Amino acid sequence: MMQVMQPVVVLAGGVGAARFLRGLVQVVPPAEIVVIGNTADDIWWHGLYVAPDLDTVSYWLAGIADFERGWGIAGDTFVMQTQLARLTDQSWFRLGDRDLATHLFRTGRLRAGVPLDVVTEELRRRLGVASRILPMSNASITTRLRTEVGDSHFQEYFVRDGCRPAVYEIYWTGLEEARPAPGIGAALEEARAILIAPSNPIISIGPILRVPGMRQALQAVRERVVAVSPLIGGRAIKGPTVELMQAQDLEADAVGVARLYSDIAQGFVLDSADAHQSMRISALGYRVAALPTLLDDPSLARAVAARALDLAERPVAA
Amino acid sequence: MMQVMQPVVVLAGGVGAARFLRGLVQVVPPAEIVVIGNTADDIWWHGLYVAPDLDTVSYWLAGIADFERGWGIAGDTFVMQTQLARLTDQSWFRLGDRDLATHLFRTGRLRAGVPLDVVTEELRRRLGVASRILPMSNASITTRLRTEVGDSHFQEYFVRDGCRPAVYEIYWTGLEEARPAPGIGAALEEARAILIAPSNPIISIGPILRVPGMRQALQAVRERVVAVSPLIGGRAIKGPTVELMQAQDLEADAVGVARLYSDIAQGFVLDSADAHQSMRISALGYRVAALPTLLDDPSLARAVAARALDLAERPVAA
Repeated sequence: MMQVMQPVVVLAGGVGAARFLRGLVQVVPPAEIVVIGNTADDIWWHGLYVAPDLDTVSYWLAGIADFERGWGIAGDTFVMQTQLARLTDQSWFRLGDRDLATHLFRTGRLRAGVPLDVVTEELRRRLGVASRILPMSNASITTRLRTEVGDSHFQEYFVRDGCRPAVYEIYWTGLEEARPAPGIGAALEEARAILIAPSNPIISIGPILRVPGMRQALQAVRERVVAVSPLIGGRAIKGPTVELMQAQDLEADAVGVARLYSDIAQGFVLDSADAHQSMRISALGYRVAALPTLLDDPSLARAVAARALDLAERPVAA
Repeated sequence: MMQVMQPVVVLAGGVGAARFLRGLVQVVPPAEIVVIGNTADDIWWHGLYVAPDLDTVSYWLAGIADFERGWGIAGDTFVMQTQLARLTDQSWFRLGDRDLATHLFRTGRLRAGVPLDVVTEELRRRLGVASRILPMSNASITTRLRTEVGDSHFQEYFVRDGCRPAVYEIYWTGLEEARPAPGIGAALEEARAILIAPSNPIISIGPILRVPGMRQALQAVRERVVAVSPLIGGRAIKGPTVELMQAQDLEADAVGVARLYSDIAQGFVLDSADAHQSMRISALGYRVAALPTLLDDPSLARAVAARALDLAERPVAA
């Protein structure tokens, strides 16, 4: 049940979205924020279900994240990890000991038949997160890549192989039978603003938009949707955004990102360094705002969130 | 494949068996020992498969056990445990962080379709255990109890409820379709001695003997089987042996234990404090040896193991 009237909805990947949310909670009461999180990076790891993007968002909003490293919990230890490396060479996906409790709790609940959205709600409450967090779908959708070293789960490419192999193709499994998690339709309808976080448009936002019904739901509320570009001066702060856009034969710059969202968003926030592309983005039907978007600094993150919100809530006055 | 000719086989529960094995490895080359471990205490815990008896035996034989506490790994930390207790009240089964690596490894392999005996072999090798460890069965057999607080998994009674509730009935699930794990039949046939460790005869040795085919296999080699009583002066060193024997309407003393094994063992080692029962046990068809059996002391454990082995290997001379 939506307990928040006219929430601000955020489509979110991992660290980029978490940094953006750290700004947004400074301008919107956290309880009025609904996060729709990417789950296509989720992985079964030695019997545990791990949801890296949901956890990153949760930990950042709970204030317990390792804000420097980006993932995991601040001050966590790696005793299990060290021992696991003695037992198997399959220890490349690092899990902290405190972080493990999240994975045990979630896996136990999933194995008991509880849907992912319900477990996610339980976890965010127990972690003390005021914002609602919804997985994009309760169905299992997985990002996979065909690379020069073979067919890989996204985490194999991203963590194990360090994004080094050339990527030939990106594809998703599990889409057919999937639909948006309960609550997403209502949240989008009721939202006063829907913000696409500065996450990787291919492997973070892309899977969210691929959930059957999601894109149409966003098209119906397009006038309230604003996207924030993850690129600065045509480059990603972190992660393989440019490489994966190129692998999809996309123009790997702010214009390329804007093209991906032009049917579902009317506002576009980009970095000052990319302001020279504003005209081309406007020509796609966007109202555009340019400002510094390096979100490492919480006060800059606040300014970016405020500007995105402003574009979404006052479209005609912009 | 058996790589050891004429092994010494040990039917084992948890800590009592581990203490006994610490003595046995002083008189038998560890590589010539085959442990058949109880798995009826195993539990799915927040998505992880935990095999307490197999792990206790493995950690003791690997020399990494917490020998004071009995379970787990020496010097382990409990960071995950502390965090899990913040997320759920289902945190009564304690898992150390280093110990967790075992459970992740095993669960991942089981989920990948690898049978428990193969995973157990992988684990003992990687932990540096020279003795072979076989689960009693690859099938899932579970000890359950009807108690005054309801129907419980053994670990709920043992750990969560601290053995406090009155026990009305002990029963097992999963027996019908089970059979002994691969290698057990050959090990018993080839064994020069088969020793029943001083473990709880009801909930540690009992389930092993209940695996269809196991009891008959032991009956066929009865002249090489020797049991060690877990009682001293009619009391258990640790755990609810007496309570659970009474719940089964059994005489809760050395004679009661001897009765449980009289069709499968010809030798019986009991504590000096119970020597007054030797005649009654002899009358059951046993040759009996009495000596101090408090196995906390590794040198006493060695003496008990040596005496049990002697009874098994030289029955006519005893």
